[in-house]
Amino acid sequence: MNETIRIIGIDPGLRRTGWGIIDVLGNSLRFVGSGTVLSDGKAELATRLCQLHDGLSQIVHGQMPHEAAVEQTFVNKDAVATLKLGQARGVALLVPALAGLQVAEYAPNAVKKAVIGVGHGDKKQIHMMVRVLMPKATFDTDDAADALAIAICHAHHRQSVTGRMAAALAMAKAG
Amino acid sequence: MNETIRIIGIDPGLRRTGWGIIDVLGNSLRFVGSGTVLSDGKAELATRLCQLHDGLSQIVHGQMPHEAAVEQTFVNKDAVATLKLGQARGVALLVPALAGLQVAEYAPNAVKKAVIGVGHGDKKQIHMMVRVLMPKATFDTDDAADALAIAICHAHHRQSVTGRMAAALAMAKAG
Repeated sequence: MNETIRIIGIDPGLRRTGWGIIDVLGNSLRFVGSGTVLSDGKAELATRLCQLHDGLSQIVHGQMPHEAAVEQTFVNKDAVATLKLGQARGVALLVPALAGLQVAEYAPNAVKKAVIGVGHGDKKQIHMMVRVLMPKATFDTDDAADALAIAICHAHHRQSVTGRMAAALAMAKAG
Repeated sequence: MNETIRIIGIDPGLRRTGWGIIDVLGNSLRFVGSGTVLSDGKAELATRLCQLHDGLSQIVHGQMPHEAAVEQTFVNKDAVATLKLGQARGVALLVPALAGLQVAEYAPNAVKKAVIGVGHGDKKQIHMMVRVLMPKATFDTDDAADALAIAICHAHHRQSVTGRMAAALAMAKAG
């Protein structure tokens, strides 16, 4: 009954949006690709959002993932930065949803817990664990590595949901 | 040399995004239409952003405006609200930009100044002046009325730019 599920993880940002794609078959993870979509800091905001849209659309339509996961934004005290991130995040959520994908959201500490086992840790630890979990993984930026970590988090989460559903089904049948 | 320019104004919000379309010919403004795109508060965020995208896309492709204007978000101290608004605003800027339109942004006090003559005033004054400037204007929500005010602001701003360019050209010719 197992079939390969392709997941795209996205780490949104107005200047750089990271993406990472993995295939999940049962408990095994396979690295498919990763990269970073850039927007031109000198262009107008609407143009920059188009650049993010076009870059992400190209990846989604080219790689055909089945599910998407986006990091929940860390809301900090700098309202201008929060607004910028929000705008980029709107596009990052929209692109896979327009392609018909379910889009899950995970808090940064959920991503850390899935990848390094605890809810805290620095970027270096996350990147190291991404390489341990998928030795063939490559990433050009921190954002791409983070995006792979988000995809891994979704793989763990969806498996535990599937596992719980299977267990519930088995119990229902036994009952 | 005058030709009609169709402008869409957009007042973005995650729950309700207002839009208003006007035609500008020389100094005259003509009301074309207005409305409100709603998103389902019970749906997931990515789905809601899709609903805003689809509603706005339908308006832009149906009414074929030449230029777009979006209100600059009021950045308040509530980071969660700022993030929500940012995500909706990302979609509101993206849709006309994807359709090839230039997207101008105006601060709320610039909109007030264009419509009621001063940089402060309440919503009632803005709505009254929208009706004075375009007696045939109708709007179903405050957001739609605000969107019309944004479109009017852009009409004034682009005319003053055009006027300055014409004056500069006349001076250059005279010199």
